[in-house]
Amino acid sequence: MDKLSSLTRFKANCPFLGKTKTSTLRNLSTSTSQRFPSLSVLTERATKCPVMGPALNVRSKEIVAGYASVAGSNEVERIHKDKGIIPPPGATIDMCPHASAARAAAQMADDLAHATTKATVAANKTSKSVAAEAAAAGCPFHVKAAAAASEEATPAQPKAKKVHSGFNYEHFYVNELDKKHKDSSYRYFNNINRLAAKFPVAHTHTVKEEVEVWCSNDYLGMGNNPVVLETMHRTLDKYGHGAGGTRNIAGNGAMHLSLEQELANLHRKEAALVFSSCYVANDATLSTLGSKLPGCVFFSDTMNHASMIQGMRHSPAKRVLFNHNDLEDLENKLKQYPKETPKIIAFESVYSMCGSIGPIKEICDLAEQYGALTFLDEVHAVGLYGPRGAGVAEHLDYDAQAAAGDSPFPIKGSVMDRVDIITGTLGKAYGAVGGYIAGSVDFVDMIRSYAPGFIFTTSLPPATIAGARASVVYQKNYVGDRQLKQVNVREVKRRFAELDIPVVPGPSHIVPVLVGDAALAKAASDKLLAEHDIYVQSINYPTVARGEERLRITVTPRHTLEQMDKLIGAVDRIFNELGINRLKDWQAQGGRAGVGMTEGTEAVVEPMWNDAQLGLHDGTTPAMLHSGEKAKVDAYAVEKAREVFNPLLGAASGPLQATRTTHLEYEIAVSTRPATRAAASMKTVPRLEEIPVPPPTVSASA
Amino acid sequence: MDKLSSLTRFKANCPFLGKTKTSTLRNLSTSTSQRFPSLSVLTERATKCPVMGPALNVRSKEIVAGYASVAGSNEVERIHKDKGIIPPPGATIDMCPHASAARAAAQMADDLAHATTKATVAANKTSKSVAAEAAAAGCPFHVKAAAAASEEATPAQPKAKKVHSGFNYEHFYVNELDKKHKDSSYRYFNNINRLAAKFPVAHTHTVKEEVEVWCSNDYLGMGNNPVVLETMHRTLDKYGHGAGGTRNIAGNGAMHLSLEQELANLHRKEAALVFSSCYVANDATLSTLGSKLPGCVFFSDTMNHASMIQGMRHSPAKRVLFNHNDLEDLENKLKQYPKETPKIIAFESVYSMCGSIGPIKEICDLAEQYGALTFLDEVHAVGLYGPRGAGVAEHLDYDAQAAAGDSPFPIKGSVMDRVDIITGTLGKAYGAVGGYIAGSVDFVDMIRSYAPGFIFTTSLPPATIAGARASVVYQKNYVGDRQLKQVNVREVKRRFAELDIPVVPGPSHIVPVLVGDAALAKAASDKLLAEHDIYVQSINYPTVARGEERLRITVTPRHTLEQMDKLIGAVDRIFNELGINRLKDWQAQGGRAGVGMTEGTEAVVEPMWNDAQLGLHDGTTPAMLHSGEKAKVDAYAVEKAREVFNPLLGAASGPLQATRTTHLEYEIAVSTRPATRAAASMKTVPRLEEIPVPPPTVSASA
Repeated sequence: MDKLSSLTRFKANCPFLGKTKTSTLRNLSTSTSQRFPSLSVLTERATKCPVMGPALNVRSKEIVAGYASVAGSNEVERIHKDKGIIPPPGATIDMCPHASAARAAAQMADDLAHATTKATVAANKTSKSVAAEAAAAGCPFHVKAAAAASEEATPAQPKAKKVHSGFNYEHFYVNELDKKHKDSSYRYFNNINRLAAKFPVAHTHTVKEEVEVWCSNDYLGMGNNPVVLETMHRTLDKYGHGAGGTRNIAGNGAMHLSLEQELANLHRKEAALVFSSCYVANDATLSTLGSKLPGCVFFSDTMNHASMIQGMRHSPAKRVLFNHNDLEDLENKLKQYPKETPKIIAFESVYSMCGSIGPIKEICDLAEQYGALTFLDEVHAVGLYGPRGAGVAEHLDYDAQAAAGDSPFPIKGSVMDRVDIITGTLGKAYGAVGGYIAGSVDFVDMIRSYAPGFIFTTSLPPATIAGARASVVYQKNYVGDRQLKQVNVREVKRRFAELDIPVVPGPSHIVPVLVGDAALAKAASDKLLAEHDIYVQSINYPTVARGEERLRITVTPRHTLEQMDKLIGAVDRIFNELGINRLKDWQAQGGRAGVGMTEGTEAVVEPMWNDAQLGLHDGTTPAMLHSGEKAKVDAYAVEKAREVFNPLLGAASGPLQATRTTHLEYEIAVSTRPATRAAASMKTVPRLEEIPVPPPTVSASA
Repeated sequence: MDKLSSLTRFKANCPFLGKTKTSTLRNLSTSTSQRFPSLSVLTERATKCPVMGPALNVRSKEIVAGYASVAGSNEVERIHKDKGIIPPPGATIDMCPHASAARAAAQMADDLAHATTKATVAANKTSKSVAAEAAAAGCPFHVKAAAAASEEATPAQPKAKKVHSGFNYEHFYVNELDKKHKDSSYRYFNNINRLAAKFPVAHTHTVKEEVEVWCSNDYLGMGNNPVVLETMHRTLDKYGHGAGGTRNIAGNGAMHLSLEQELANLHRKEAALVFSSCYVANDATLSTLGSKLPGCVFFSDTMNHASMIQGMRHSPAKRVLFNHNDLEDLENKLKQYPKETPKIIAFESVYSMCGSIGPIKEICDLAEQYGALTFLDEVHAVGLYGPRGAGVAEHLDYDAQAAAGDSPFPIKGSVMDRVDIITGTLGKAYGAVGGYIAGSVDFVDMIRSYAPGFIFTTSLPPATIAGARASVVYQKNYVGDRQLKQVNVREVKRRFAELDIPVVPGPSHIVPVLVGDAALAKAASDKLLAEHDIYVQSINYPTVARGEERLRITVTPRHTLEQMDKLIGAVDRIFNELGINRLKDWQAQGGRAGVGMTEGTEAVVEPMWNDAQLGLHDGTTPAMLHSGEKAKVDAYAVEKAREVFNPLLGAASGPLQATRTTHLEYEIAVSTRPATRAAASMKTVPRLEEIPVPPPTVSASA
């Protein structure tokens, strides 16, 4: 077998080399990557390969852990040793197709390394041996030297791309991907592993490399709340992992039913229904309503989430768009249809990418006037607004809702009562996964009975469901996390304003830092990660409009003052380094995305949480955290969350058994916030004055 | 406030009484429920209420735990005591609207109890007090006596149904539900809580009432495999609960990436992508392909799952149906389109409701001939077929696939290689939740980049993902569960045949017992549960055709011989009691649904697993379990499943830490099946000769 045919074979196996003529490889190697200005396009593409990427040993932060790059570069050697698959020294190129292809891979890697400007090759070995080992390390796109070394094993055949003699499907896929590359909308996933014991810290593709996460939707850190984890451990022990079926066939249990009862109570609606995700909840509910209601017309806010848009598209119903939060436009469109025509106004409370909040009450007024149903997505609000965490609709009648406590009955005339359908998620503030709808019992039963996306799918695992419910109950009974989150949000916004760093103004917890350019936003995100160990994903088209690209920062109650300092300093520095527009620059240009739109000063937007609600008047606001302090956990809310599981899991008492290694550190405290206490004290539950926490030990895996 | 207005108010709050005129309540109470012949329609509807149902104290097995009936009747009293909300003895009807409504509820319940034939009211109290307590127990549809007792609490207002002045949405929902009730397709969910320590036993809505489950899709019992649970506990401790974001924003970690690598390897494809569920995977993938491929035409088997049908419908592409498994019909339809037209043949390997298996190889032949992509749903086959559990496509080249071991490379010309797109689930044989696609790297990347159902949703929790991966790896390295499952399936089919009980013939693991009538199928399912503590859900229209209603029985490797005896005996008895057709009856009628279609004898269908593959030739088949025996766990597969998590969770060794209460009993054994051992021994992994199991202790919650 000659060298050329081996090379051809090898190229056919490699997704990035195989598509490229050798003559053009050099051209690619001289073009600078848009995403990583320090790298060539060729190197950037090489990082897509699960083995070549690490083997090239580009600094991990520089390549920002491309999609599928699991193994760290420093782990490659160990992997080889473990697998014992170093090619024998005497192997010749003609021994078998795999050995020769491995050599070809080494040659290619040599070329690549020479052509690449800043790729630092492993110090102790030639790029040739690195690539040979890379090929040996089990990359499915490279050939396996292991087979060459083991003559008795069946030689695996290298695979040539299948080309159907009709339509060329593979070619089509590549073209579609090229479109994404060309308009910079191709997404590289960062490898982020959030550590329960170090929230908000995560490790990247190497367990030793840690970063501070400022863009997660685990808005309150409930993903590692000790009573949530304890409940999940107990549920796993009792009920195992999967539900084992659809809700209709063996997959419906007391955990599912009681979570739905809990959620109905949360929103003071008659019923609720849980789905795999809120994407599925929105899609299934809107498409079912739109298909069933005769002649239905949707009225949809232009900023609505993709799941709602898909749901509406998946029905034959007409979809009328109204401008974002524009009541006049909505009314003009509503009045064009007879009152008896079924209509659905679909909108959100908190719009997640800009942080604006929908005029819920006013939309309910219009809905009643024109005979429309209201469909409100509270995905970015549940757990975060209202005295019990039921969302913005609850927040709008804060005192009355707080006073009504745990009553399942709606407060007549309240905003939450007037909204017909509320959808929410368990995957963000509640730190779990899954979504739900809440509304009248017949509405919910109708969706339960007709929506294929609900009916024909395995239900969520009991432990997941139990963790979600523990989280909902905890947040229902403790307002402190919501308060501290908003206090921290105010602080971060205030400090950005001091530095003239442009934040899209809004009344919610979202902190969108305007960058206004796709490449700059990506570069800023990359620099934060590479140079400051801070992870904030850049948000580009199509998630936001072109020219409105941003860094979407999510502040939690668990970010410390020191972490805030670091974030503010890093963003300020990167704005200088990359020459990103400050607020005054946008003002000079007439403003963009709500930033600098008013002359002279920035428009003042009243935050949704007022000072009294934050506990600033009576001094009950929880204190901001300092570095090294333990996270606070509310003993009363823990007890309430434990209590609901007594019938199924048996009574829990004593120290929280959140983890088996007990490496989570918490401080258990009794809060004295009157609003939730009033609600909670309707039932006489003994307060737990103190739960002793076992001393922290070092996790075996840390 | 007079009695009448209280009554009216009360009715407005109750979903089943509120809709019904008092005059017709009596009529309903004299009609016999179709689902529960021993009950009136009125009582059946009452069971829908989360409080009234249990409060009526109908024998739980008789009412078969209607939707939303969480609390057991014997728990009502305790709940009241715990909540301390017994109405004060001196409360008069005029004290407040809640007290009076509670009285009205009591009156209603009295009427109901009198009118109902067999409803047994709690022995020690009048129905009046039961209902009053029921109302007090927190049912959202009833009024809360608690408020009456507590004068300082803000009185919650009872809610009247909202009627929009335009279209009457609530009326519409009720009508849609009535349609379901009228054609008997309304679904009542059974409350089934599968117990990890007692697989396949579950408790119903009362923790003390246990039933044997014969219809779960946890086909191998992997939902409580000790290495799966150990891995999940460890992952929860390290990474907490939710992923905290979409795959693009903070929700992509090493667990996700490595599971996808594992699944790509399983199917020997270049890449794989995980979704919230396989419903979403099928929907998102087919709709994206159908929308993107220019002029695409789908060719869809008439028995395809709802998720595939929805996916095709959600694209503008044309959908051509071909008769179930009918190659001639498929070819006739394919040849009507030019070769260059993009085409997708969408089909399944195991059709879950009838147990038939698609002609995968022959469909690949047609696809190549006519230039079509093949899209194969292996949802009911992954984990269950093939030497490594990759599905039927792998099974068709059993020996070659076994010999290729853990190689990521496709076996050229093998059926699995020839299929372009494979979709599978983690929620059935793998005992977890979630779904995936596997195929070429560019195909997967295209779906990853364009499918809204993938992009805009929170990713699955790390612990869920880790549990799924542990399960995949375990099953890849142990064939015994697959073998024993099929041996048990053969046994159950053989014994049904001996008794002339009609089973829809098929080569797979599904055991569909034909009943042939919706009401009879429901009645048989109800009787199995109520009289024999056996849970088998009846499968009615629209899941199967009218007249082909059945009991779909799923046999696992963990069902004991004694449990099989009980099942066979119970089904035989119920067939007698209800006069359900035997095989000979169907033969006399010319057959139905494949049953009794051939004259004289039943058509012989060769099972997919042959005797050699089952280990019957070399005597390596695992032994069927007897009552009291411990489940077998394969030590080698445990070690392999532990090993893949070493980089992230640290090395695990010593006794399995599956549960914190260690109440799961297992026997750790080293299997000697040659097929998987050959595959596994390609890498030299030290075998674990014995893992000591800690002595079982009684769970605190048992």
